[in-house]
Amino acid sequence: MSVINEPLRFDAQALLAAARQAKVTLVGAGPGDPELLTLKAAKALGAARLVLYDHLVGKEVLDFVPRDADRIYVGKERDHHTLSQEAIIDLMIRLAKGGKPVLRLKGGDPYIFGRGGEEVQALAAAGVPFEVIPGISAAQGAAASAGMPLTHRDHACALVFATGHLSGEGAARTVDLDWELLAHPRQTVVIYMGVGTLRIICERLIEHGRAPETPAAVVERATRADERTVAGTLASLPTLALVHGVRPPALIVIGGVVGLHPLLASTTQRASIGA
Amino acid sequence: MSVINEPLRFDAQALLAAARQAKVTLVGAGPGDPELLTLKAAKALGAARLVLYDHLVGKEVLDFVPRDADRIYVGKERDHHTLSQEAIIDLMIRLAKGGKPVLRLKGGDPYIFGRGGEEVQALAAAGVPFEVIPGISAAQGAAASAGMPLTHRDHACALVFATGHLSGEGAARTVDLDWELLAHPRQTVVIYMGVGTLRIICERLIEHGRAPETPAAVVERATRADERTVAGTLASLPTLALVHGVRPPALIVIGGVVGLHPLLASTTQRASIGA
Repeated sequence: MSVINEPLRFDAQALLAAARQAKVTLVGAGPGDPELLTLKAAKALGAARLVLYDHLVGKEVLDFVPRDADRIYVGKERDHHTLSQEAIIDLMIRLAKGGKPVLRLKGGDPYIFGRGGEEVQALAAAGVPFEVIPGISAAQGAAASAGMPLTHRDHACALVFATGHLSGEGAARTVDLDWELLAHPRQTVVIYMGVGTLRIICERLIEHGRAPETPAAVVERATRADERTVAGTLASLPTLALVHGVRPPALIVIGGVVGLHPLLASTTQRASIGA
Repeated sequence: MSVINEPLRFDAQALLAAARQAKVTLVGAGPGDPELLTLKAAKALGAARLVLYDHLVGKEVLDFVPRDADRIYVGKERDHHTLSQEAIIDLMIRLAKGGKPVLRLKGGDPYIFGRGGEEVQALAAAGVPFEVIPGISAAQGAAASAGMPLTHRDHACALVFATGHLSGEGAARTVDLDWELLAHPRQTVVIYMGVGTLRIICERLIEHGRAPETPAAVVERATRADERTVAGTLASLPTLALVHGVRPPALIVIGGVVGLHPLLASTTQRASIGA
């Protein structure tokens, strides 16, 4: 075998690898109710051969995947990660480079607190083609079914999404949010993953100037059959949520629009514990 | 006819009216691509008998409505309102009370800058039952197709939506936004309806402390076949958008995530004019 042949041989291998390479499709599973999948997502699920799915994806959504397709659970619950984020990314790249199209299924919208951005960034850097199909985010599902418009000329000229998870190490773990930003008046604030830190969030917002009587609610399992809303104020909500045993997955919604919930939930809401 | 009969007669009429009364369904049409309708929205459209639709609802979405159903355009373009907001609300109430189910079709998500909140509030006050079906908002559509994750641990810990339309009267008309809020660092800011006020928005954000080199883009006609992205920085975007003739409907996206657009748009983006 002469050295002169080497470049040619390499090119052929690269071409072969490129031809074998498959695409990764990131799909937003929506907030829970399978009817809130987009047509595009439902079509992608129906054609999937291999699905990597997250913790908050419901069984009814997985039922759109053909029976004989492979389903791999890669969910990350608190203190119980089946695979690290890095391992999930590695797995996707390996599968796609091996010619296996991957459907990466995430709760809500992949580009709103789904770490979808980090995943496609790694795919792009590895030269793996990808597509992103958006999904109805939990805030939109909760707004529609619990009767809390996210914007409203009388109550909110801006809408802010943030997450309430703890960051940092050991005893220093805390909720690291831009409190000054979130405490501005006349905006709707939606906090994802904030049940465990609800009291800290409400206290910090009051400390930073948001009125204690600002309407606030927690919507548990939004758009699912057992959806439940606990509504009160920034001052009362932490205790109300504790008394009623609110558990994740749940969203916190803060602002004047939450005051519309008793009126607007009447014809749509599943269970409501009011202030 | 004795006066004693009156209350009874009234009750019977009230019962008759209640029995005749139909529901109003507010449906989010999504950002443009008809495949981004939810399954629930597609089903509601397919069963509609009467549709009141807005300016930004595309023909392909209306094609889901049965051919023999009534379609009424109630769009509000700038300086050209077919019906005032009050008239649209009155019409819906009159139709529903007359026993005619109404499908109210709005671009994006009815509860994100769609004035859906005001409409259902009026319906609820008038005792008309309603349902809200969420839709993919333009920001989500633009993010997925133009390759700009709305959140990303390295770039944004919060996501803010606002509108850039002018408010006030005559010469005093201006963009009335919470600039201090929008200028906070480490957040993604999405401005709906801001093409006409893009220069004011970028200038105010810089004045209030957001770095002039912050990545910023305009996504025109997101998710449609002729989608186009013009990307630059807070300092360069107003001139770039002018040069390239950007026109509504378009979204402004500001923040570190916009810097990912050249990498992430590669496999999905339709047309991109880069910085």
